[in-house]
Amino acid sequence: MDKQKMGSVPFVFPMPAAVVGADVDGKPTFMTIAYCGAVNNGPAMIAIGSNPGHHTMRGIVEHREFSVNIPSERSVEKTDFVGMVSGATHDKSAVFEVFYGGLHHAPLIAECPVNLECTVREHLKIGGKDDIVIGEITECHVDTSALTDGAPDMEKMRPLLYATGARAYWGVGRKVADAWSAGASYRD
Amino acid sequence: MDKQKMGSVPFVFPMPAAVVGADVDGKPTFMTIAYCGAVNNGPAMIAIGSNPGHHTMRGIVEHREFSVNIPSERSVEKTDFVGMVSGATHDKSAVFEVFYGGLHHAPLIAECPVNLECTVREHLKIGGKDDIVIGEITECHVDTSALTDGAPDMEKMRPLLYATGARAYWGVGRKVADAWSAGASYRD
Repeated sequence: MDKQKMGSVPFVFPMPAAVVGADVDGKPTFMTIAYCGAVNNGPAMIAIGSNPGHHTMRGIVEHREFSVNIPSERSVEKTDFVGMVSGATHDKSAVFEVFYGGLHHAPLIAECPVNLECTVREHLKIGGKDDIVIGEITECHVDTSALTDGAPDMEKMRPLLYATGARAYWGVGRKVADAWSAGASYRD
Repeated sequence: MDKQKMGSVPFVFPMPAAVVGADVDGKPTFMTIAYCGAVNNGPAMIAIGSNPGHHTMRGIVEHREFSVNIPSERSVEKTDFVGMVSGATHDKSAVFEVFYGGLHHAPLIAECPVNLECTVREHLKIGGKDDIVIGEITECHVDTSALTDGAPDMEKMRPLLYATGARAYWGVGRKVADAWSAGASYRD
């Protein structure tokens, strides 16, 4: 075992490449973030981290609503684009086909196989470069073509993974094992 | 576009299959969680969600320290095992070879290519089944054999992905594109 100390780095693998949406000045805008994870159930909640200066954060603060959209590999260029440029200087409202669900200010991306509508439960400023927003997921929309036996199918969704450090997007590979099952062979 | 509404579900893709460690009653114990994401930088922070009744949570509450370990595909059976059984009834201290870094109560797993040492910054009880713990990452240890040009390499780490809904572990595939680069072709 030969380990290297890297300091205080956010090295979680895999990270998603999620596209967060909000309405700013009456128009949808988007930003790509890897600082994002599910953190609760019943109701489901999601935590995201973002610099408060980002344009999309203005809409989240104003409306206390946002979306989290899970892009597929086929959307990699648009996903990267909305993470490269600021909504303050670039109108991103036409990058994606947008629809709305039950929330009025959580713009959802049609071409993303999974869309989460979220309301802000907590907005934490606890140091560091980013604000932490915890959203309650009020509704989830999944492409029917991405479902197998009622559950989202990795092979059909082909979500992007963000490789932090190497600054690249990766795809999913193959199924390794069933959960709540593979461990039985270790116990035996 | 044909979408199906799924309700309030924590459908983030990909999710990690992270092994969280803490010391309880003087011994390391571990639980596997998918509710986990990076949420801040400078210092780096991570958010996890867990039912407060889980044995590992006792140690996190007592010591306000924990670890997050990123397992490789080769550890899938042990990873699933520590998520299947409770530390209240099973001594998990010998499942993995353990080492410690700068924190005294954040047990790190030698065979995991990435290990994060964390101190508790916030412990939120805001409804839902789970508590949300936000940890500051005080140190990160990475296998030198998993690094390429100083950054963790997906191909060398081969981290597990958790497919929620389908309840399965998946592996990473191939690199799709460079970040802060692929979007340029959309802009052009």
